[in-house]
Amino acid sequence: MKVGILTIGNELTSGKIADTNSAMIARAMQLQGWTLARIMSVGDDNDAIHDALAYLLSRVDGLIVTGGLGPTADDITTAAIARSFGLELYTDKTVLTHVRDIFENRGLHWTQNNAKQAVFPAGSRIIANPSGTAAGFALYRAGKIVAVIPGVPHEARKMLFEGVIPLFREEFPASALHVRTSIFRLTGIAESAVDEAIAGDRLAEAGIAVGFYPNFPENQLVLTARESAAEAAEEKLAAACKTIETRLGKYIFARGEESLPGNIAKIMTERKLTLSTAESCTGGMIANRLTDLPGSSAFFERGAVSYSNESKVALLGVPAAVLAAHGAVSEETARLMAEGIRRSAGTDLGLAVTGIAGPDGGTAEKPVGTTFIALATGGKTLCRHYAFRWDRRRNRTIASESALLMLWRYLTEELRNAG
Amino acid sequence: MKVGILTIGNELTSGKIADTNSAMIARAMQLQGWTLARIMSVGDDNDAIHDALAYLLSRVDGLIVTGGLGPTADDITTAAIARSFGLELYTDKTVLTHVRDIFENRGLHWTQNNAKQAVFPAGSRIIANPSGTAAGFALYRAGKIVAVIPGVPHEARKMLFEGVIPLFREEFPASALHVRTSIFRLTGIAESAVDEAIAGDRLAEAGIAVGFYPNFPENQLVLTARESAAEAAEEKLAAACKTIETRLGKYIFARGEESLPGNIAKIMTERKLTLSTAESCTGGMIANRLTDLPGSSAFFERGAVSYSNESKVALLGVPAAVLAAHGAVSEETARLMAEGIRRSAGTDLGLAVTGIAGPDGGTAEKPVGTTFIALATGGKTLCRHYAFRWDRRRNRTIASESALLMLWRYLTEELRNAG
Repeated sequence: MKVGILTIGNELTSGKIADTNSAMIARAMQLQGWTLARIMSVGDDNDAIHDALAYLLSRVDGLIVTGGLGPTADDITTAAIARSFGLELYTDKTVLTHVRDIFENRGLHWTQNNAKQAVFPAGSRIIANPSGTAAGFALYRAGKIVAVIPGVPHEARKMLFEGVIPLFREEFPASALHVRTSIFRLTGIAESAVDEAIAGDRLAEAGIAVGFYPNFPENQLVLTARESAAEAAEEKLAAACKTIETRLGKYIFARGEESLPGNIAKIMTERKLTLSTAESCTGGMIANRLTDLPGSSAFFERGAVSYSNESKVALLGVPAAVLAAHGAVSEETARLMAEGIRRSAGTDLGLAVTGIAGPDGGTAEKPVGTTFIALATGGKTLCRHYAFRWDRRRNRTIASESALLMLWRYLTEELRNAG
Repeated sequence: MKVGILTIGNELTSGKIADTNSAMIARAMQLQGWTLARIMSVGDDNDAIHDALAYLLSRVDGLIVTGGLGPTADDITTAAIARSFGLELYTDKTVLTHVRDIFENRGLHWTQNNAKQAVFPAGSRIIANPSGTAAGFALYRAGKIVAVIPGVPHEARKMLFEGVIPLFREEFPASALHVRTSIFRLTGIAESAVDEAIAGDRLAEAGIAVGFYPNFPENQLVLTARESAAEAAEEKLAAACKTIETRLGKYIFARGEESLPGNIAKIMTERKLTLSTAESCTGGMIANRLTDLPGSSAFFERGAVSYSNESKVALLGVPAAVLAAHGAVSEETARLMAEGIRRSAGTDLGLAVTGIAGPDGGTAEKPVGTTFIALATGGKTLCRHYAFRWDRRRNRTIASESALLMLWRYLTEELRNAG
């Protein structure tokens, strides 16, 4: 089955915003096993929409259109499509009531132009919008299907998965296999190394599609099984997941929509553990990522951004003599930073980072990227040396990621040992 | 003049990456005053490229193609275009030497497939790539021009401005006006308020195009003058900039490529001022944004992420009695946090934030979003109350932005007063 995407809006052709819906839809099509033949964007322009529809519909079986369904004068998608197909417009009473209810519930003032969002081309099948006022619609033309949804990304995403894809699967049952996917979030491994690690497992030959999506400093590995029977897809996927876990287990820090800070927070909150941080080169990035989560005050006690040597002495109790003898960027300092913040904060764990992010400050002995990360646990203090090779921004990002990873590994290891 | 964009790559049709080049090119076309008629993406597929070229070239005067110029087997753009236009391929000796030199200088191993990057369709005009190995090329077909550049965003951007746009201006002199732009970075004002503030100034009637690009929590306002004489464009732009400065001066924190943290760092470093921060709800975000800049150790001394009440007492010397009487989120606490970190760090300035980011923790008296920001200066301590109305993530972001803005306003005010 061949699919096309048409995104509509002057904000796209003027560069006001980047088209992120197309990539989101493209990934969803990929998971279904459908071929995405064309992606096109045009402005809010009757002739351009008409011309693009004709071009795309002669090349694809299913077309997904986004954008231009709002209440304002420049939202012309519905009217342009109706005109293009020679269809009358009608007002859907149920949708109109729904839109009015939303206004009422939110205490918004109703203006007549909002009634436009309940207008559809004759013969439309309505696609519900659970999170907004602009409903979508689908039209059938000569064995092909056109589905139209709003451009607002979170609305488009929900309506794609809950409305458009089920409709497409219903319309093209031959291509409607049962699709099951599993997402692994990995860190500390490159695409080529992943390829190598799973090369012998012939996942592709077993009918498992493997997608790798790098998003510095993390990577997503997506496994997809497509089978005519739901059970077969589930079994095949489960077997493939086991393979991935065996081969790449130590790089997998999260599954599905989970995140590394989120998984750390979950474990720490459950186990009633507390954390404090001492950051030099990462400058507060670790504390920031952890406190980004709702409820982080349950485990995060405090953080020190000890940028100067004086602050490492005053806030963390690192002796000036150690700084003088070994330098601020050293294993000795990192260990004392972690132990110092743990002791003064009175937390179960203390996490510390010190490094040279660059672009300046490197020496022959300690080049830019030299970083030490330490985790004080009360018993032993773990410490590891890293040699990052990126620019300042990415050295800081990968340092914070590596610190969170050290913490996560400790927590999961502890849990495992504790049974 | 009508322009089209064709981006090529399986990574686009599979959703592996989002197409950010199109928005970048669209903005550049907008600034030139050219109409972007179509944006299209296809995979690395001969037939799709051929078909898309034919469609687009019958609708535009100039076509910009990106992607598929690399050395690997799936990079087929050059060959597909040559085949589509019935042109032979040839190796450009100068480009080949250039590519070989890059390999030699970087100490990379030369493999024969890299010679592919010096192959072009007959009759091509080479577009130099100052930052990579893949050169671009332009072809002229029946009064139209096709410019082909790599997909790597920073290479595409440089080659667009230095190669493609000058070529298009040369080829279509009638549309080749002199373009001058000025970018204002604003904060604390919405698009509708900007519209209102400059409504009376009829910039559009004076031939100044105004673009507004929201990027939470900042906004960019772009003024563009296009005139047949360079001097006229400059004069017109200067007059418009004066208007904007008069009307919106207090919201403008940066011009062009400058940033708010960058401008703060510049002033503080020049004046040899030092800063420490005390953050509660922003959890290290302010320290992180400031230390993201190279050379930030010149002014940033330390930061405290005082998440718990205990840490506000221990790190900042806020009396427990004040916390008990007024609460952690109060003007009294904010002031004492700023003064406490300033005093203990021994810095010129101390900046503090305390607030309720949400989703929990709000009360009737202090709802989610209640935030106090204080700046201790040695003399007086400034403090302001904010009532943000966003979700947790955006409440934190706008709180850190507002804190930086308070600091920046103080610094620029001080500078002004000091002459």
